[in-house]
Amino acid sequence: MLVVMKPHASQAEIDAVVGKIREMGLQAHTIPGAQRVAIGVTGNKGGLDPGQFETLPGVADAIRVSQPFKLVSREVKEEDTILDVGGAKLGGPEIAVMAGPCSVESKEQILETAHAVKAAGAKFLRGGAFKPRTSPYEFQGLAEQGLKLLALAREQTGLKVVTEVMDVESLPMVADYADVLQIGARNMQNYSLLKQLGQVKRPILLKRGPSATLKEWLMAAEYVVSYGNYQVALCERGIRTFETMTRNTLDLNAVPVLKALTHLPVVVDPSHGIGLRKHVAAMARAGIAAGADGIIVEVHPHPDKALSDGHQSLTPDEFEGLMRQARVIAGAVGRQL
Amino acid sequence: MLVVMKPHASQAEIDAVVGKIREMGLQAHTIPGAQRVAIGVTGNKGGLDPGQFETLPGVADAIRVSQPFKLVSREVKEEDTILDVGGAKLGGPEIAVMAGPCSVESKEQILETAHAVKAAGAKFLRGGAFKPRTSPYEFQGLAEQGLKLLALAREQTGLKVVTEVMDVESLPMVADYADVLQIGARNMQNYSLLKQLGQVKRPILLKRGPSATLKEWLMAAEYVVSYGNYQVALCERGIRTFETMTRNTLDLNAVPVLKALTHLPVVVDPSHGIGLRKHVAAMARAGIAAGADGIIVEVHPHPDKALSDGHQSLTPDEFEGLMRQARVIAGAVGRQL
Amino acid sequence: MLVVMKPHASQAEIDAVVGKIREMGLQAHTIPGAQRVAIGVTGNKGGLDPGQFETLPGVADAIRVSQPFKLVSREVKEEDTILDVGGAKLGGPEIAVMAGPCSVESKEQILETAHAVKAAGAKFLRGGAFKPRTSPYEFQGLAEQGLKLLALAREQTGLKVVTEVMDVESLPMVADYADVLQIGARNMQNYSLLKQLGQVKRPILLKRGPSATLKEWLMAAEYVVSYGNYQVALCERGIRTFETMTRNTLDLNAVPVLKALTHLPVVVDPSHGIGLRKHVAAMARAGIAAGADGIIVEVHPHPDKALSDGHQSLTPDEFEGLMRQARVIAGAVGRQL
Amino acid sequence: MLVVMKPHASQAEIDAVVGKIREMGLQAHTIPGAQRVAIGVTGNKGGLDPGQFETLPGVADAIRVSQPFKLVSREVKEEDTILDVGGAKLGGPEIAVMAGPCSVESKEQILETAHAVKAAGAKFLRGGAFKPRTSPYEFQGLAEQGLKLLALAREQTGLKVVTEVMDVESLPMVADYADVLQIGARNMQNYSLLKQLGQVKRPILLKRGPSATLKEWLMAAEYVVSYGNYQVALCERGIRTFETMTRNTLDLNAVPVLKALTHLPVVVDPSHGIGLRKHVAAMARAGIAAGADGIIVEVHPHPDKALSDGHQSLTPDEFEGLMRQARVIAGAVGRQL
Repeated sequence: MLVVMKPHASQAEIDAVVGKIREMGLQAHTIPGAQRVAIGVTGNKGGLDPGQFETLPGVADAIRVSQPFKLVSREVKEEDTILDVGGAKLGGPEIAVMAGPCSVESKEQILETAHAVKAAGAKFLRGGAFKPRTSPYEFQGLAEQGLKLLALAREQTGLKVVTEVMDVESLPMVADYADVLQIGARNMQNYSLLKQLGQVKRPILLKRGPSATLKEWLMAAEYVVSYGNYQVALCERGIRTFETMTRNTLDLNAVPVLKALTHLPVVVDPSHGIGLRKHVAAMARAGIAAGADGIIVEVHPHPDKALSDGHQSLTPDEFEGLMRQARVIAGAVGRQL
Repeated sequence: MLVVMKPHASQAEIDAVVGKIREMGLQAHTIPGAQRVAIGVTGNKGGLDPGQFETLPGVADAIRVSQPFKLVSREVKEEDTILDVGGAKLGGPEIAVMAGPCSVESKEQILETAHAVKAAGAKFLRGGAFKPRTSPYEFQGLAEQGLKLLALAREQTGLKVVTEVMDVESLPMVADYADVLQIGARNMQNYSLLKQLGQVKRPILLKRGPSATLKEWLMAAEYVVSYGNYQVALCERGIRTFETMTRNTLDLNAVPVLKALTHLPVVVDPSHGIGLRKHVAAMARAGIAAGADGIIVEVHPHPDKALSDGHQSLTPDEFEGLMRQARVIAGAVGRQL
Repeated sequence: MLVVMKPHASQAEIDAVVGKIREMGLQAHTIPGAQRVAIGVTGNKGGLDPGQFETLPGVADAIRVSQPFKLVSREVKEEDTILDVGGAKLGGPEIAVMAGPCSVESKEQILETAHAVKAAGAKFLRGGAFKPRTSPYEFQGLAEQGLKLLALAREQTGLKVVTEVMDVESLPMVADYADVLQIGARNMQNYSLLKQLGQVKRPILLKRGPSATLKEWLMAAEYVVSYGNYQVALCERGIRTFETMTRNTLDLNAVPVLKALTHLPVVVDPSHGIGLRKHVAAMARAGIAAGADGIIVEVHPHPDKALSDGHQSLTPDEFEGLMRQARVIAGAVGRQL
Repeated sequence: MLVVMKPHASQAEIDAVVGKIREMGLQAHTIPGAQRVAIGVTGNKGGLDPGQFETLPGVADAIRVSQPFKLVSREVKEEDTILDVGGAKLGGPEIAVMAGPCSVESKEQILETAHAVKAAGAKFLRGGAFKPRTSPYEFQGLAEQGLKLLALAREQTGLKVVTEVMDVESLPMVADYADVLQIGARNMQNYSLLKQLGQVKRPILLKRGPSATLKEWLMAAEYVVSYGNYQVALCERGIRTFETMTRNTLDLNAVPVLKALTHLPVVVDPSHGIGLRKHVAAMARAGIAAGADGIIVEVHPHPDKALSDGHQSLTPDEFEGLMRQARVIAGAVGRQL
């Protein structure tokens, strides 16, 4: 059961609801939302009667929720969430296209890429300034210098900046420069970070952990939303399986299943998903055909010289070719691009 | 190294090549092909010089093959293999559509389904007469009676019949009725069966084992081809992963990777792949967008009453809706349907 | 519900039970056992009352079975099944040790190995005459010649012969020579073969498929048992996971879980399980500590020259060292060896 | 190549080595160690000659390292690392036993448990004050109050405290109370946290991520060590596979493989690994038989009332029974307990 309070419910009204729940021998979880408070009820064995709560002062609604993820569930909110990133949309009828290099490497590199992907039709520029690397001896990103270059590229092109934040310490700095905060796969269950993201005024692009079930992933999104930030999109980027010919196994099954379970937008990352440059376009097309709300694609002007992930980055020409095909597929599934 | 003999090379010429290989301290594997013999050479540490073999009498070609799968590799045969099933094609510009119930259950059921999927544009009728079931206590199929009903449906509709053969014992009987022999996922590495399939004059639809790597799957196809049957198509039907919300994880990454590695056609089975009726169409569309040569879809006039797999079967209406979308996607990737 | 008939129940009595079940609108599955017939009842929504069946003529017992595997379940038979292989036991207080080469290669090889493993304390000789190989170009075994060599080794040492049967065609021949019929991992769901094994008078060692769940594995054993052969042991040999440093992932969790669910003996194969010679002994010890009823270990007099699996075969000396450790561990868990 | 400086090498000596490496066109990675600096060399195509570096002032050694993990590798340090936790050892001849509840819940609970596990022979008390939970609506731990209770239990029993640290923010506080800092599976690749752990004066127990390969896990340990903290132990706690009957799949194969690759101690967590109370003892025994240096076991005085993980917690009595068996197994593999 989820008791949703009215937008301006008073603290006394909230306390009264909590008190009532506890009197019933149940637990009350006050969920500090951006605009309204919701109170999750747990501990009940059978179903509860919504009528017990709907009549209390300050209560907007009492909703039976069968899933462990509540606020992100379509049971709670039926209509699609559309993120508005300074005018660029994610989740609406237009497929959102995010493109750019794995890592920001230099001014020339990021500007050349930004202009190229903008010309091909992207609305978002991706690029990492803080890079989670398997080895401590590998390139770890340009840090704030990288963020500044992303901001410069935004200034020149109008593209919205999507970049990864790796920890609570650098969150204020990254949030200062970024339009969308990307959470990497290995941080999907970094709950301390997720709680902080709930209190940030930036949309979140939450990547799926390499072995996260769909339920766990939705629960991770629930952390962010329950702490107050409703601007969350999910990004499928490949799961870990036994197959070794591909870097990961892009799980497109996730797309229709998630679209049915949650109102949050779903983005597909074919670059990490399959990890092989020549097959990225095929998987991007398939992602759109499966119903994704957006794609995020690695593009590098000189993939062979990239400091990271060059083997899975498209050249600007290849990206442009993909965009042409993607437009037709989008049309076939009632979307535009 | 693969030494390919001319179509009418004599036994003496073949023996001479084998003798030469053995003299070099290597192993010779004579591969009885449908039209010509090939001789695989193994045991060499470094590369071999093709010139040593090309000059021998009866030799057409000597090919360096870096992959463990040889005859199914694009290294050996660059152009796509197109299966011709009595006029219906699999592997060419037209996407092959196979549809029908999981199990043949009755005359009414199979005829109603056959007419419906024919009307919607399918060229192949799928339906199981021998059913591999996890439990010995479940419906095991109608056996020959089911085959006869499939043949009747073919007679009435002109659809080509795709049906599973489970063992060597029933192979002659199934081959008598079927146009395409389907090998189920759990038999993908039933080598005794694969060897027999190499000597059958029927195209084979070889499903991927639930935990088979792409390489193992290609090796299984290599068994069939090396025993003489070059008419093989591969069918991706979902792999086993940790995710439990879907029945399997349809691995569409397999499609572009296989299309690059092998000349054999690649078919996608979204029904078993995702296992949830309402999401089958999305995965079928995605399969075509990824570059599949065909789709195989479960259709049942009354899914709720199906003896097997009803939860993943489309109704004829849903199938017709899928076909309309599939046509547009096919066009977007330069194919037709 | 499982209705177990008395050993000499008449056909009329069986028919009467089946008739009664059908009258109730349920399905009856007559299970042809070696000594008595059992009738599985399915299709019921809630629980059934055993009293309805126990009073019918010829009925020995009516058992509520909550698991889909019935005859192999501890719910149906509480005490451990002990296989008696010509005096050598599998499943009792003594840990059964099976050892020998992956493939039978020559008279010298198999006799040298047999004498060595006998001296170290093994009671069973393993060795493959028919080899399922991923590639059609690899050594496929010595076939009947290999079986004859195994029989010769048995004659000289008294060891019981465990060898793989790959198909229905060769089953009579293999059953003629073997004491225990091994079913390989890739044939675990070869249902046509399983049904035939149900009618053979030889104990079966059923290996787990590389991606089979415990439930599917038990269902495969249920096939053999329900077709009449109650002499079945299960062999854990490693599952397929994402880890690539080991050949497979030996799943020792399976041992205690299976011992609780089924009365059948459980054997562990550390050689295939981890696939690395220097770690085989550690996993064999762990298997015994986890509660396994037996181990099956690859031993080859000259692993570096083995035609298959040399990288995971112990030398006779290493095997003898393992046996010394294994004896102490067996004692620690109340077993002997 | 790893150039290891002498303990008191001057900055000028270090700079000279770095300069020499760069002159060669290679990258130098200065690794700030607790007692001495090491300089990793990367970017070389072929092997390097150690002699080029060993003759430079301040250089202790130059080591060829073939693995991507360097400082944790047995190639670099052959002898076992033994952690000394205030007199309690982890990694030496004695098996380290860590036991206690999943979460610290109350003073009574933690003290009762601590006295019981101490009496049974444990040297370390485990217990979570900060709990990473899949759902934001579940019990998140007692935080500092929990740490204080752990400290109280240590005071009364002399047990060393092992407790989880979830983020950089709470690291100083947790390090104040804990003897060993546990890093949870979901934080294994939280690189920001790992870097900070490199600068903490507390031993680290690094749990394996649920889908981390052994190599990735060792690379995570390399982060901690390369940032200066050599006191690291690895804890296998089950990986994610397709099997659903067990909570995770405890991968005991990891034990012998890791012991060969690294000098760090390896601990096994059978409680999370199999996740079923009645099978925890079997897996603990198997872990010791496989060669683990320690076990960490959940014990709760009243598992059925536990706020978390009760289904996998042993009672004090069950734990004592396990300890008796574990002692015999330890002896069988040349260890004590």
